[in-house]
Amino acid sequence: MTDIEQLLQQIRNFRDARDWQQFHNSKDLAVALSIEASELLELFLWKGNEEADPQKLKEELADVLMYALLLTDKHGLDIKQIIEDKIKRNNEKYPVDKAKGTAKKYNEL
Amino acid sequence: MTDIEQLLQQIRNFRDARDWQQFHNSKDLAVALSIEASELLELFLWKGNEEADPQKLKEELADVLMYALLLTDKHGLDIKQIIEDKIKRNNEKYPVDKAKGTAKKYNEL
Amino acid sequence: MTDIEQLLQQIRNFRDARDWQQFHNSKDLAVALSIEASELLELFLWKGNEEADPQKLKEELADVLMYALLLTDKHGLDIKQIIEDKIKRNNEKYPVDKAKGTAKKYNEL
Amino acid sequence: MTDIEQLLQQIRNFRDARDWQQFHNSKDLAVALSIEASELLELFLWKGNEEADPQKLKEELADVLMYALLLTDKHGLDIKQIIEDKIKRNNEKYPVDKAKGTAKKYNEL
Repeated sequence: MTDIEQLLQQIRNFRDARDWQQFHNSKDLAVALSIEASELLELFLWKGNEEADPQKLKEELADVLMYALLLTDKHGLDIKQIIEDKIKRNNEKYPVDKAKGTAKKYNEL
Repeated sequence: MTDIEQLLQQIRNFRDARDWQQFHNSKDLAVALSIEASELLELFLWKGNEEADPQKLKEELADVLMYALLLTDKHGLDIKQIIEDKIKRNNEKYPVDKAKGTAKKYNEL
Repeated sequence: MTDIEQLLQQIRNFRDARDWQQFHNSKDLAVALSIEASELLELFLWKGNEEADPQKLKEELADVLMYALLLTDKHGLDIKQIIEDKIKRNNEKYPVDKAKGTAKKYNEL
Repeated sequence: MTDIEQLLQQIRNFRDARDWQQFHNSKDLAVALSIEASELLELFLWKGNEEADPQKLKEELADVLMYALLLTDKHGLDIKQIIEDKIKRNNEKYPVDKAKGTAKKYNEL
């Protein structure tokens, strides 16, 4: 994944120029990711479904992605691989004939 | 980004086979992303910094990434672009000479 | 619960003086509560278990409690009642002989 | 606050019967609180503003409140006090003449 690897390099460089790897244990990375997901969600608070500020949406999505990438990188995970594996699992949890057109969780199908 | 586009295709196919796009407004996608980030965080609850179950870590990270990708896709965003833009902004918020070796937030530097 | 009712009155007055009840649908209250819980969590980011700023801890806990109280009030719930009911349920999910001294989730006991 | 103190006693008893205080450092309590807030939010995922299951709403709200109470208790905080203090601060951040009828955040008023 040449583009992802390029991005990871830029993210690592930014982190290492500031000597921040010392803080990047997995638990705090997961906390940071959760906080960024919350900041993204805040763009919709008290608003309609499509009313988030578009510029801020880009920035908060970027923050979420960066922490997700830092975690995958720390654990030597390949993004393509883990997503494809999860889609396979989801195919079993959410068979098309049962899940089509409904938002029910898998344990309610 | 050929690999990302390939992944997005798989994610879209999974969604469309189940006719789920009707539920995927931006606010609910942000809510879903926040929930997945929380499920990832739960792998560390009451535990040490590196004690999350590795298999579950892969699965929850995949879930976070999938919702993040669905949101970028919905808004026609290029992942490479938005991350590079954010790194540029962060370079200004966290200048190396002030931010090096400290975990302080930008407004405390 | 006289003290809780007093607090609720103050919270309602603050809201109504600003004509904010129009925004307080249950979903957005739940989103707000989640965001405040995240802001509380952020006080511990990159830090040790007991290193949160004590003044900010009070403020963020107050924010979490206020949104929780607004939700219970909106649904006519009695805090004492719902907590006692949940403790009863937890007694079954986490029997002392199985749960004592372990942080395992109920489905792993 | 006699009723709150009674509730706290029940919560402490439940915790101590299981010897769980050893896990209850402040950071993990904040993580747990954030996770419960997320489980509450999940009741609204893909749904309308008032479509959460009422029974589950009670249970998740109870979980949120219990962790909030455990944190206030651990830090010797009085719920009435911290909420009243926050309302005072909010009175300044959100003056009625500026904040009335708008959902804008204080830094956008």
